[in-house]
Amino acid sequence: MDAILTLTCSDQPGIVHSMTSAVLACGGNIIENQQFTDPTTNLFVMRTRIQSEQSLSEASKVLHQGLMHLDPEISLREIVRKKRAIILVTKESHCLRDLLYLHELGELPIEIPVVLSNHSDLRDLVEAHGIPFQQLPAQKADAEAIIRNSVEHHDGDFLVLARYMQILSEEFCEHYPSQIINIHHSFLPGFKGAKPYHQAHARGVKIIGATAHFVTGDLDEGPIIEQDVAHVSHSATPEDLIAIGRDIERRVLSKAVKLFAEDRIFLVGNRTVIF
Amino acid sequence: MDAILTLTCSDQPGIVHSMTSAVLACGGNIIENQQFTDPTTNLFVMRTRIQSEQSLSEASKVLHQGLMHLDPEISLREIVRKKRAIILVTKESHCLRDLLYLHELGELPIEIPVVLSNHSDLRDLVEAHGIPFQQLPAQKADAEAIIRNSVEHHDGDFLVLARYMQILSEEFCEHYPSQIINIHHSFLPGFKGAKPYHQAHARGVKIIGATAHFVTGDLDEGPIIEQDVAHVSHSATPEDLIAIGRDIERRVLSKAVKLFAEDRIFLVGNRTVIF
Amino acid sequence: MDAILTLTCSDQPGIVHSMTSAVLACGGNIIENQQFTDPTTNLFVMRTRIQSEQSLSEASKVLHQGLMHLDPEISLREIVRKKRAIILVTKESHCLRDLLYLHELGELPIEIPVVLSNHSDLRDLVEAHGIPFQQLPAQKADAEAIIRNSVEHHDGDFLVLARYMQILSEEFCEHYPSQIINIHHSFLPGFKGAKPYHQAHARGVKIIGATAHFVTGDLDEGPIIEQDVAHVSHSATPEDLIAIGRDIERRVLSKAVKLFAEDRIFLVGNRTVIF
Amino acid sequence: MDAILTLTCSDQPGIVHSMTSAVLACGGNIIENQQFTDPTTNLFVMRTRIQSEQSLSEASKVLHQGLMHLDPEISLREIVRKKRAIILVTKESHCLRDLLYLHELGELPIEIPVVLSNHSDLRDLVEAHGIPFQQLPAQKADAEAIIRNSVEHHDGDFLVLARYMQILSEEFCEHYPSQIINIHHSFLPGFKGAKPYHQAHARGVKIIGATAHFVTGDLDEGPIIEQDVAHVSHSATPEDLIAIGRDIERRVLSKAVKLFAEDRIFLVGNRTVIF
Repeated sequence: MDAILTLTCSDQPGIVHSMTSAVLACGGNIIENQQFTDPTTNLFVMRTRIQSEQSLSEASKVLHQGLMHLDPEISLREIVRKKRAIILVTKESHCLRDLLYLHELGELPIEIPVVLSNHSDLRDLVEAHGIPFQQLPAQKADAEAIIRNSVEHHDGDFLVLARYMQILSEEFCEHYPSQIINIHHSFLPGFKGAKPYHQAHARGVKIIGATAHFVTGDLDEGPIIEQDVAHVSHSATPEDLIAIGRDIERRVLSKAVKLFAEDRIFLVGNRTVIF
Repeated sequence: MDAILTLTCSDQPGIVHSMTSAVLACGGNIIENQQFTDPTTNLFVMRTRIQSEQSLSEASKVLHQGLMHLDPEISLREIVRKKRAIILVTKESHCLRDLLYLHELGELPIEIPVVLSNHSDLRDLVEAHGIPFQQLPAQKADAEAIIRNSVEHHDGDFLVLARYMQILSEEFCEHYPSQIINIHHSFLPGFKGAKPYHQAHARGVKIIGATAHFVTGDLDEGPIIEQDVAHVSHSATPEDLIAIGRDIERRVLSKAVKLFAEDRIFLVGNRTVIF
Repeated sequence: MDAILTLTCSDQPGIVHSMTSAVLACGGNIIENQQFTDPTTNLFVMRTRIQSEQSLSEASKVLHQGLMHLDPEISLREIVRKKRAIILVTKESHCLRDLLYLHELGELPIEIPVVLSNHSDLRDLVEAHGIPFQQLPAQKADAEAIIRNSVEHHDGDFLVLARYMQILSEEFCEHYPSQIINIHHSFLPGFKGAKPYHQAHARGVKIIGATAHFVTGDLDEGPIIEQDVAHVSHSATPEDLIAIGRDIERRVLSKAVKLFAEDRIFLVGNRTVIF
Repeated sequence: MDAILTLTCSDQPGIVHSMTSAVLACGGNIIENQQFTDPTTNLFVMRTRIQSEQSLSEASKVLHQGLMHLDPEISLREIVRKKRAIILVTKESHCLRDLLYLHELGELPIEIPVVLSNHSDLRDLVEAHGIPFQQLPAQKADAEAIIRNSVEHHDGDFLVLARYMQILSEEFCEHYPSQIINIHHSFLPGFKGAKPYHQAHARGVKIIGATAHFVTGDLDEGPIIEQDVAHVSHSATPEDLIAIGRDIERRVLSKAVKLFAEDRIFLVGNRTVIF
């Protein structure tokens, strides 16, 4: 077994000792270990890569027994068992293309069982990569029902909104806590409303950026996973800003998906810890 | 004469031709030239470095005659005549220290006739650099009157708010349009109210930044001159964020002051053009 | 006519005046203008966007007449006449994919008449984008002869080495001065020889980068067009560095190609001026 | 006791378990813990912050007993016991000023018992901060003897070469392994010899940078601690590059000193691990 153990629990003395004892008990070896105690929530989070001669189910039993007194949230995933991403898109292809490209290169350890869309524009692109494409119905409740079925049918681990231009219902979002990743443009200062790049241009901003975040019931306001920016000058038109923004968006979303795929994101209150 | 000509006017055919004709007429040579037409406001802005055997007053007359038909705003400054900055501070020293340091190194072509403050904390630091320090009275109207006198007395070209923690009156700000430079922290997303670094920490931002801008009646909302950011991780405490923020603030403010000192900032509507 | 005029000549009084006179003479209007005098070579370079009611050939005649006394190198290209890029690749797809993607998005104003390769691996990818693919023979002289024919046949404006892993002959390079763009990894400090990312890992570098440059007879040493970097940590394996390097390479090469396509690169001695 | 434990040893099963057992044995609590196994050298490194009711000497005994079977290199430093930096300078002040400024702000947890220099130029600056200044003799052997005495007399933990323009003897460097931090400009590509910024300008680089590294017998080639860069354009003169370089140098050196002061730098072969 070569697996990633993640653990979240209240901070208390002896956590790492319990973990190392449990790893010894299952004949395991610690390859990597990272931990952090969040002072605000008093939560302790830990990511540990363990190799052991035991099988996943054997090791899992031993680890759970050794750690249950901490009342933790635990996950144990064999590295060969890649996370399964259900990707949602609309018409814009830049984020999707980056995910497909990195996936093909082998740099993004995920499986993509299906791409769902509320439009048909990207069908050819998706199918050219040998991935099934399914168009969603226009009515939101119907679409969300199909997405849910798809997640269940394909045993999906998370949803990636790769420029999916539909607001998901609060109920839907709450059904997948910390399992939906969205990408959103970001500016200094921020802008609300339509045509944000045009607003940013009118305001003469010198930096534009993008934020990947978990989706909660409150769209665009969930815990931040990754952010990046680019410098822009007065000579950039709104169209230039949009093009630069696309480049940042695709890089930031791909980075966030990779972090999720490798079990590197932990939630402490409304913040993420990234290992 | 080795001087910087700046010109702002409505865009119209023949502007550059008029400028080059006028430069030839005063026996001048163009060393640098930058121009930009803002599509939104239809304003044309140009920064030209001219060397000529003529004196400033002779050349100035010729240039004004050759350009007056454009109905322009013009300035002509000999490079040896450095701009004079009146610096305002409160208690925090980081921005002031950077300005003093770069000034001493000769990298910031300004003169600093006086530093004004609503507190006495930084008196020793300022005087150790051989620069007069004057403490302002507590009452805002009195303080602003003294600042105005100081600008007049010292022939000040602009005001630098190097962490001056007083809100200037709307009337005062409007008296110095595009002549007051302020530095302000900036976040993705933005935060209003007190303790912004603590808010940013609570929100788990991955990037913090700073913005230098002209002050208008509406503080923090004037035209943006310069922005920069730094990446931060979950392990940064609010105090760490404040320290990182200080480093960005001082660099961004010093950069903006340098741009102003070199006549590189032009205003087109609510945006700046930076050459 | 909506065209880009580029001009390079020895610095001398009256250049801009001559240009503006010539533009007036052809009934033109200057939309953008950028210029720079290189102090080392004493070369003056200028990029001007001109709109005129006249046709390209009419305006061209007037402009040449008005500027010929400067003994300049001039080019005048209508914006609708996109530059034609002959792309060379080997087996790695990351740079090619980015060029194809940006081209499809409409962000890269070039035409791609053909992709040439010394291997067949990328044929399917290229043809899936509706672009002809041609495999080159193994023997270098034969391959270079075919590339030359291809440039001539397709009226190519420049060559893009998008990870083309063959060293071109000195004679070939000198036949296309400032017309071949290459992408190369870059490190602080630099490394020679094979497996540079492994060397960089062994050296514990904290930054890796990429450089796009013109190819001269001396491979990797031609004038630099664009550079960028990324920060890396001790936990990155050589494979991680390679993946990060790929991301920088594709962005830097695409940026350089865009600069070339928009006539924004000028050569002064061994340096580039980028507008 | 609130202390930082650092440990380096050959990778082997049970290290973290031994550490956590030892921490429990001294009634301690783990506040932070970071670890890394370097695959090349097979070295395991760990940085742990421990709080305990026991005194440093009591806890130290228990920890050493519990860990000695690993045959480790260990250090245990109470956080209140700040590391003592002996700073060496020549004539340039930018790096020194930054260290003094951050030290005064309380952001750099070091003590500075003395500043040594082979010139007298910076005496006033140093003494104005209430820190003793000592001028070194011209003869290298004499100077190094005095530096050694100074380190011993002031119980110095490390040496900071803040633009000290003398090459230290190989013998001297080897006497202080991983205890001398230097700052050095860095370019893409690299340059050897005199006037590197002028060479970089002649080469038209688009990025300049700086590297902080440990000094070994082979100057400029020791393990890299921290690197950063800035983008530059064709319009920057060599003097501009030098000014930009100064800004990067001071930030990179201060960052490296802070990392050292907080026990965050580990050596594995010729690379550093930075926590």
